[in-house]
Amino acid sequence: MRTHNAVNHPISAHVTSAQTALGGPVAPSRGALRPLGLGDVTITGGLWGRMQELNAGVIIDHCLGWMERIGWVANFDRVAGTASGGHAGIEFVDSEVYKLLEAMAWELGRRPDAALEVRFRGIVSRVAAAQDDDGYLHTSFGHAGQRARYSNLEWGHELYCHGHLIQAAVARLRTGHDDELPAIARRLADHLHAEFGPDGRTAVCGHPEIEVALAEFARATGEPRYLELARLFVERRGNGMLGTTLFHGHEYFQDDVPVREAEVLRGHAVRALYLSAGAVDIAVETGDDELLAAVESQYLRTIARRSYLTGGVGAHHQNEEFGDDFELPADRAYAETCAAIASVMLSWRLLVQTGDARYADQIERTLLNAVLVSPRADGRAFYYANTLHQRTAGAASTDDELSERAEASMRAPWFEVSCCPTNVARTLASVAGYFATTDGAGVQLHQYGSYAVDTTLDGGERIALRVESDYPHDGAVRIVVRVAPTRPVPISVRIPAWARGRAEVATSGADTGTGTGTGSGWSTVPADAVFTVERSFSAGDVIELRLPMEPRFSRAHPRIDAVRGQAAVERGPLVLALEDVDLPEGIDVEHVELDPTFSPVDDLDGAIVGLRRRTAPEDEWPYAAAPAELGEFFTAKVRPYKDWANRGPSTMRVWMPVSGG
Amino acid sequence: MRTHNAVNHPISAHVTSAQTALGGPVAPSRGALRPLGLGDVTITGGLWGRMQELNAGVIIDHCLGWMERIGWVANFDRVAGTASGGHAGIEFVDSEVYKLLEAMAWELGRRPDAALEVRFRGIVSRVAAAQDDDGYLHTSFGHAGQRARYSNLEWGHELYCHGHLIQAAVARLRTGHDDELPAIARRLADHLHAEFGPDGRTAVCGHPEIEVALAEFARATGEPRYLELARLFVERRGNGMLGTTLFHGHEYFQDDVPVREAEVLRGHAVRALYLSAGAVDIAVETGDDELLAAVESQYLRTIARRSYLTGGVGAHHQNEEFGDDFELPADRAYAETCAAIASVMLSWRLLVQTGDARYADQIERTLLNAVLVSPRADGRAFYYANTLHQRTAGAASTDDELSERAEASMRAPWFEVSCCPTNVARTLASVAGYFATTDGAGVQLHQYGSYAVDTTLDGGERIALRVESDYPHDGAVRIVVRVAPTRPVPISVRIPAWARGRAEVATSGADTGTGTGTGSGWSTVPADAVFTVERSFSAGDVIELRLPMEPRFSRAHPRIDAVRGQAAVERGPLVLALEDVDLPEGIDVEHVELDPTFSPVDDLDGAIVGLRRRTAPEDEWPYAAAPAELGEFFTAKVRPYKDWANRGPSTMRVWMPVSGG
Repeated sequence: MRTHNAVNHPISAHVTSAQTALGGPVAPSRGALRPLGLGDVTITGGLWGRMQELNAGVIIDHCLGWMERIGWVANFDRVAGTASGGHAGIEFVDSEVYKLLEAMAWELGRRPDAALEVRFRGIVSRVAAAQDDDGYLHTSFGHAGQRARYSNLEWGHELYCHGHLIQAAVARLRTGHDDELPAIARRLADHLHAEFGPDGRTAVCGHPEIEVALAEFARATGEPRYLELARLFVERRGNGMLGTTLFHGHEYFQDDVPVREAEVLRGHAVRALYLSAGAVDIAVETGDDELLAAVESQYLRTIARRSYLTGGVGAHHQNEEFGDDFELPADRAYAETCAAIASVMLSWRLLVQTGDARYADQIERTLLNAVLVSPRADGRAFYYANTLHQRTAGAASTDDELSERAEASMRAPWFEVSCCPTNVARTLASVAGYFATTDGAGVQLHQYGSYAVDTTLDGGERIALRVESDYPHDGAVRIVVRVAPTRPVPISVRIPAWARGRAEVATSGADTGTGTGTGSGWSTVPADAVFTVERSFSAGDVIELRLPMEPRFSRAHPRIDAVRGQAAVERGPLVLALEDVDLPEGIDVEHVELDPTFSPVDDLDGAIVGLRRRTAPEDEWPYAAAPAELGEFFTAKVRPYKDWANRGPSTMRVWMPVSGG
Repeated sequence: MRTHNAVNHPISAHVTSAQTALGGPVAPSRGALRPLGLGDVTITGGLWGRMQELNAGVIIDHCLGWMERIGWVANFDRVAGTASGGHAGIEFVDSEVYKLLEAMAWELGRRPDAALEVRFRGIVSRVAAAQDDDGYLHTSFGHAGQRARYSNLEWGHELYCHGHLIQAAVARLRTGHDDELPAIARRLADHLHAEFGPDGRTAVCGHPEIEVALAEFARATGEPRYLELARLFVERRGNGMLGTTLFHGHEYFQDDVPVREAEVLRGHAVRALYLSAGAVDIAVETGDDELLAAVESQYLRTIARRSYLTGGVGAHHQNEEFGDDFELPADRAYAETCAAIASVMLSWRLLVQTGDARYADQIERTLLNAVLVSPRADGRAFYYANTLHQRTAGAASTDDELSERAEASMRAPWFEVSCCPTNVARTLASVAGYFATTDGAGVQLHQYGSYAVDTTLDGGERIALRVESDYPHDGAVRIVVRVAPTRPVPISVRIPAWARGRAEVATSGADTGTGTGTGSGWSTVPADAVFTVERSFSAGDVIELRLPMEPRFSRAHPRIDAVRGQAAVERGPLVLALEDVDLPEGIDVEHVELDPTFSPVDDLDGAIVGLRRRTAPEDEWPYAAAPAELGEFFTAKVRPYKDWANRGPSTMRVWMPVSGG
């Protein structure tokens, strides 16, 4: 992929222009690619369109309803003195209100809605009323009857909450409103700079988040002090500054090794990924290429050695941590939804810096499998943890039940720590921000679906495209040029790793460019990660792509012991899973083997696989049991993992034992 | 195995006779078999002799030294007012002092030692001085500046500590001393009966232990109120009485389902096993065969579906819990040392009730692998958790370092929660109590090693045997009759499951009995779990047994996905493990495959296996990697798992990938 000039703009000079259009979550001042924001990319239908409708129509209301009902929004009123009673929920529930404000802000930017605007402003006003005169803002610290401000940096999550408020303010700014929420955030960020900046105390928060928030806020406001503070937080980390507990060592907090010296992501997965995303932003804005290279190297090792097939990360329930390299048990996959979202944040930052399509692959895999598995089909319940192997069907949780956390095998409507639903909401509202970039000369399409791109290239010429696809249901992608620049331009598409060497392309319209596009007629795309058509386009020209959607067996690296002798089935970008409800009566996923000689057959969004029932004695010492017996061959359907348990409690497995290993 | 008449003696009638000799940890009033106590079984050498020497010479001193040094013993002085300062350690460190007192009591019973007796009495006096007038005794609750008694039954561990005090008193009584410690325990137990008995509050302790302790104390003292209270605690449990937390549901506490209705052991493994052991004792003494059958059924399912090859149980680090059936990851095996010890306690109770040799098999497997792995060869450091797969070599802990808990890959000298070292100490001191039983007519030998049996059969005749073996190093076992009864008697030996059909026997002396013993000359033992020679013996008669010690491959049940396509090597009762220090320079256990066509070759206590180096790219997406490449065949030694990391930090695996699955 082409690289535009990577100039290390002074941040204050850069920001002004970034504010001229509706932006996206990330607006770096340099990099191989430049993100196209929500003003430039509009999702028009398909899977992502349906998910955005679900978000707008159900999920945001659902989250807000829960947080009003159980008093998390009212916490702000209590601090403001307009409501009585004690603080509701654990100490960092402010962050859920802020993540929902961020979702609403993106949603309002995507599609103005007067009623939603009123609700948004109403919550912002309640938040504003809880802000202290010096800018501090938190509902469980620093007021009468509460612990002192910053008295428990390890576990208080104060700056974590502040970070989410600031990210919501970034969303508000990037959607064209420099109003009350950004003003709150400015006062808060100024307070933080005074408190923790060069003249303040040398400390960090137990849960990273403030770093990535402040860096982006610096980009959005042009205020270099915010970047300076973000940089200080990153640099301070890794020196054993945070107090440990019986169960939480320095590694848990990424406080064991300085960010620029670490070799891999470790400890609490969400913490590690938020910190890494912030470190990339800071490295980009400060010209710290050593730091950037360090994080990229850590993340590449994490992708290669600490990732599930779904893109999910964080193997351990204990402490929600990464495991060792290649320690990836399917049946204890924690793979927290928030960690998947955080990995998308990091992948996107590295994609736009490097132009390396593997990060776009990772975004696709993670969004479609590790993130979209979280919300139930009706948008009213969510997975927090995402196992790849459910051995016993859980009990369905009721829609009124507050769940404890992650152990339930069913999605839950709300959690005592409810980070995931609001994280899903803000991600869905802003997901178009992860679809396309420009390098100034042309446009790069990183994700597929139905969406419109309309942006201005270097030199001021407009380009508008419409991407039409029922992806990932279907592998046909049609890119229609709606407005073409007068000069030749490159239009690039990512070829997913699983499609390379098998994708086909056809172009219509005059082929006057220098790319490999060949005019009309289908041809096989070279086995590269990116395919570029560079030529003069006219309105109505079409680039058609066919991605091979035949289901395929996937096997794991031999060091991933936990799934040795097993195979998964993938179809396009979707990981498929076997659920007991798709097996004959009386057979569950624990008692079948996959027949590897029967190639999976495409079947709507899933695949038909060949299986045999497998039985072995289950009430004897299990290391001297008689060999398993295999029954008659039969076939069954495997369906997208993201949809599992939408038909009720079930047992499920992504990895299936293979007859003969 | 023959069953003696199982009469449900009234407990008070039973106890008097049980006190006539040195007893063992468990003295049920009925059952298929009757335990032989420390007065009847004396370990004379071999592995267990060496372990008892290490315990007497190092481990007990080591534990006492740590607890003096860090103030855990002085906690009693603080309550007594003879020392100042705040309580040291977490709130249940009293229990460690009590477990060490139990170890010392057994040790003094095994071999009187004036200096140890003085130290023992000295600690007991300090404990006594901390007892409140009404019998309550705890160093972190109920005194000035402390939380109120029983104000935190979920987490305070008060009754858990009380239980360990009472178990120490049982050891003191059973070793012939009805002195200060039993007096303290009586006052405490009377207090508990008043507080929690039929006229007291309806409550249970978050951590079971008091149940098994009170049941045995009832046996040891003849006091039926103690049994009554133990029964109440068991009956109350399972009704959601204990408050849950974000991470700890009712199941964690075994408070989800009444004991007699549960189907499997679940939740926190040590809690579940201590509770089950107590439930067996109570069922036995109250004639509650339904409860007994329920616990046996739960445990059999646990053995069959929730046990590691080592006998270790409790798969999850998170909450130290059992996993689902067949969810047994090698690389996250928690397999806490204390859970292994607790499973031996339960296995023994079920063995003596049922006579079923599979429980003796389980005891052997668990003691030799899951318990003996804990102490370092020098007795000055211990494993808390016992993984079966160490992917990265840890840093050695220093001998001065207090460790946090279980994550370290090296044994640690002491822990903030240090339940395991003292548990190892009390188990080693009393281990002879798990070796042999009588059914009244004869003697049953359940474990092998070098030890002497000297007991009185029904009718009053004495029998004395000497068992001579370098087991598990060697499979030859020689049983010499030292004193023979005048009438024919049965002598039974357990044939371990792995030896059945391959064990050989030879007997010397006249064969005048009715058993299957065939006089002199070797013959193959029938493939039963127990082999009995029943005849008239004379002093000097010998039964010789040869158990086949050739190393063998073991494979796991097909539902244990985590080790599919892998094999372990066992030699006799020992699980063997591969450590990187036994591999050629530059190869570690992560990069080899086992050649299944090369049968393991016996090599001292280990085995030589055939391996190939296996490599695959490790810096790419791990689900589409190139096939692994195998290098040249070579051989390496696998050694007893219990000894791993005694040569320094290493990587290790019990289960090795097998070429070709």
